[in-house]
Amino acid sequence: MFAFTLVLDGDSKTPLYEQIYAYIKNEIRNGKIECRSKLPSARALAEYLQISRSTVDMAYAQLVSEGYIESVPCKGYYVCEISLLYDIAPQKHNDILYAKEDKKENLIDFTPNGIDLEYFPFNTWRKITKSVLNVDNKEMFGNGDSMGDMELRSSICSYLFEARNVHCSPEQILIGAGNYYLTTLLCRIFDDDKVIAMESPTYQRAYNIFRTNGRNVVTVKVDGDGINMEMLKSCKADVVYVMPSHHYPLGTVMPISKRVELLKWANESDGRYIIEDDYDSEFRYHGKPVPALKGISENNNIIYIGTFSKSIAPGLRISYMVLPEKLLEIYRRKLKFCSQTVSRIEQATVREFIEGGYFERHLNRMRAVYREKHDMIIAAFKENSDVIRISGENAGLHLLLEVNNGMTEDELIAAAGKNGVRVYGMSENFNSGAEIYRSGIILGFAIVNKEQIEEGIKRLKEAWLK
Amino acid sequence: MFAFTLVLDGDSKTPLYEQIYAYIKNEIRNGKIECRSKLPSARALAEYLQISRSTVDMAYAQLVSEGYIESVPCKGYYVCEISLLYDIAPQKHNDILYAKEDKKENLIDFTPNGIDLEYFPFNTWRKITKSVLNVDNKEMFGNGDSMGDMELRSSICSYLFEARNVHCSPEQILIGAGNYYLTTLLCRIFDDDKVIAMESPTYQRAYNIFRTNGRNVVTVKVDGDGINMEMLKSCKADVVYVMPSHHYPLGTVMPISKRVELLKWANESDGRYIIEDDYDSEFRYHGKPVPALKGISENNNIIYIGTFSKSIAPGLRISYMVLPEKLLEIYRRKLKFCSQTVSRIEQATVREFIEGGYFERHLNRMRAVYREKHDMIIAAFKENSDVIRISGENAGLHLLLEVNNGMTEDELIAAAGKNGVRVYGMSENFNSGAEIYRSGIILGFAIVNKEQIEEGIKRLKEAWLK
Repeated sequence: MFAFTLVLDGDSKTPLYEQIYAYIKNEIRNGKIECRSKLPSARALAEYLQISRSTVDMAYAQLVSEGYIESVPCKGYYVCEISLLYDIAPQKHNDILYAKEDKKENLIDFTPNGIDLEYFPFNTWRKITKSVLNVDNKEMFGNGDSMGDMELRSSICSYLFEARNVHCSPEQILIGAGNYYLTTLLCRIFDDDKVIAMESPTYQRAYNIFRTNGRNVVTVKVDGDGINMEMLKSCKADVVYVMPSHHYPLGTVMPISKRVELLKWANESDGRYIIEDDYDSEFRYHGKPVPALKGISENNNIIYIGTFSKSIAPGLRISYMVLPEKLLEIYRRKLKFCSQTVSRIEQATVREFIEGGYFERHLNRMRAVYREKHDMIIAAFKENSDVIRISGENAGLHLLLEVNNGMTEDELIAAAGKNGVRVYGMSENFNSGAEIYRSGIILGFAIVNKEQIEEGIKRLKEAWLK
Repeated sequence: MFAFTLVLDGDSKTPLYEQIYAYIKNEIRNGKIECRSKLPSARALAEYLQISRSTVDMAYAQLVSEGYIESVPCKGYYVCEISLLYDIAPQKHNDILYAKEDKKENLIDFTPNGIDLEYFPFNTWRKITKSVLNVDNKEMFGNGDSMGDMELRSSICSYLFEARNVHCSPEQILIGAGNYYLTTLLCRIFDDDKVIAMESPTYQRAYNIFRTNGRNVVTVKVDGDGINMEMLKSCKADVVYVMPSHHYPLGTVMPISKRVELLKWANESDGRYIIEDDYDSEFRYHGKPVPALKGISENNNIIYIGTFSKSIAPGLRISYMVLPEKLLEIYRRKLKFCSQTVSRIEQATVREFIEGGYFERHLNRMRAVYREKHDMIIAAFKENSDVIRISGENAGLHLLLEVNNGMTEDELIAAAGKNGVRVYGMSENFNSGAEIYRSGIILGFAIVNKEQIEEGIKRLKEAWLK
């Protein structure tokens, strides 16, 4: 029996039983109390420390529950065998300071990502959220349908029918936290041997997702009017990923003739699918929206992916995917256990935003806002049409510049950077290994405001045209 | 040149240009207008229809943008080559009615999933959300840090330090929409050849995630005090998944001796990792919380996974993972492009919920609520201790019953069901292929209220003990 050097602090915020527990635990850890040695009985220790028996009992119970000591019936408490050769002292709390991305003062960034939040209907959003967070809605905080709440899926279903001419049932719609997540699910739904064809250039994030998920991706080059069908037919792909309404980064619209060819290709053999990423089709500035590929197809082999990241806000992380019946069955069989990734509160908020007519109003407003910026840029470069060719216009949130001043893409970006303007290179969007057949500058106009566009283009001209 | 049979409806809500566009598009689709045939000039058609020239121009422009017709300079508009052999008529809008899960009247469901929302602080949550949705916070709607906003990660970091004795830096914390999502990311972070050891029984969802992500999972059986170390050492696993603070479904706490053995195993060779799923450690009813395994380890090979699904609400879909530096590097290299899956608004709300002290208060309250239910169940079965053995007590949101009345697990569940009580079988939690070494009944007590517990146990006794 060993001598206790424990001094209890009655004024401490730490309860007495915790002080005893901590003391004995450390004595054991530091090897001061040997394994298998017997602890004083709770009664004896209580007397010794002049405290109540129950306090010691609590301390001992905790030590038992954590496996430091064990109670041997009719004999008492013994220290367990714990190999202490191995140091289990906790490390110091290390606070690595994280590098904040340095935002250059008055740098004008024509990023193709993000949206213009200047006109976001905050009051409406607050109002809707408040009503959703009503106590009567407490089930909003509970588990929901793993594919997404049926109310939101129905709203999306009607929206797709009216706005995109897409015919589906709410059951086919799968809600998910962003296109990245939904695409990883697709990777699980497809058999591992499925070969996926992607254009080059294409949306590189999607390309990376398929690659990091171990998918076999073949690259098909893009002609003037879209994916090269001969290459697609000869490459043995089972699935093809396209953006028919507005190609990223080219900004081209896939013509009806090519759409029909693509649908024919998909129908030629079983298990062929088209993934239609309709990421920013809400924004078309002249004429009416181009219908979705899925909208003109009768057959059930198009996976349609849409998102609210551009049409409402990227911070929300809400995307959706329309699964063909056959893939829906596979999803239910293989991935039924995946829980939903989008908060029910925000599902309900978006639902109300759509049903209340706010979404349509917001889209109309933003279409006007973006159209103005879009037209500004085109007008500003008109006088330089001999050197700067603009393409991908009339839709989306970015334009493509072909600058024929002898500079390479890197030189153009560097020169712009020197003048305090960040622009983005087209070549980033070509699949690894694929030969670059065209360079260019991507000019996003969602985040920049009109003053910045004016100033930014002035700086670009100085950098490129002097 | 063909005769136009188009009749415009001036009163229709559809603009004239759209009527013209739709008419010509359908004529082309139906083959009534042949490929390569020339359309009337915009001027001629405008005169013929007695409408303004610009209206026809708009219709033609839309047809061009969708690739139905093309403009040949100095010649006019021609119909494009479109192979129409293939029918592209849209299908009818089919509304499959979805089967609502039929909630049996007065069925008492002792599900281990979900939480008690009766005491959720709705007003606080509403208040916080409202402040987060302030216009000055508009960046909340923009793109955030892909690993999660640093503010929330810092709050979680401090919480883990205080509540779980876990030492890490905010940079190591990765926010994600639920454990499912974070675990799939882990599958991408680990090399494909890594072998993952899982206990049997274990949390089947995690097991399924590793399997559906093509991971090689080996099963290790569980002894009284946790994973069998001999089996683990002999099975060539690189990674082991455990729940040391409260095993699901067994409810056991891993004793310090086994924790030390596990840490030694991880240290014995490079590239070995322990995944610690600390899913419900916030709820411990007698004595103080058992420290996390990561809390006692100095070395950097424990991946800690925590969630707010039980401690705040499952509807939120917010989990977090502490990555060892080495894996953090791999994540940054391989998965930098993955966007965050949790809404920034809810990240900020949870952050404020923690920082404002509401989280701690809520946990204390819920601990008391759950303790009362937990104690109720144990007390109610006390008189039947000869037939019904309870284990996994003192923590979490479920108990384990061993019913020795001669009935099989299925018979017990069926008998309970006949009496209007849903209980869950232990055997569901054994890995496929692994021999079941123990049957039992899982009794979750989070969702049921006190009246239901009383009535439910009455019914269970009728079903099992008569």
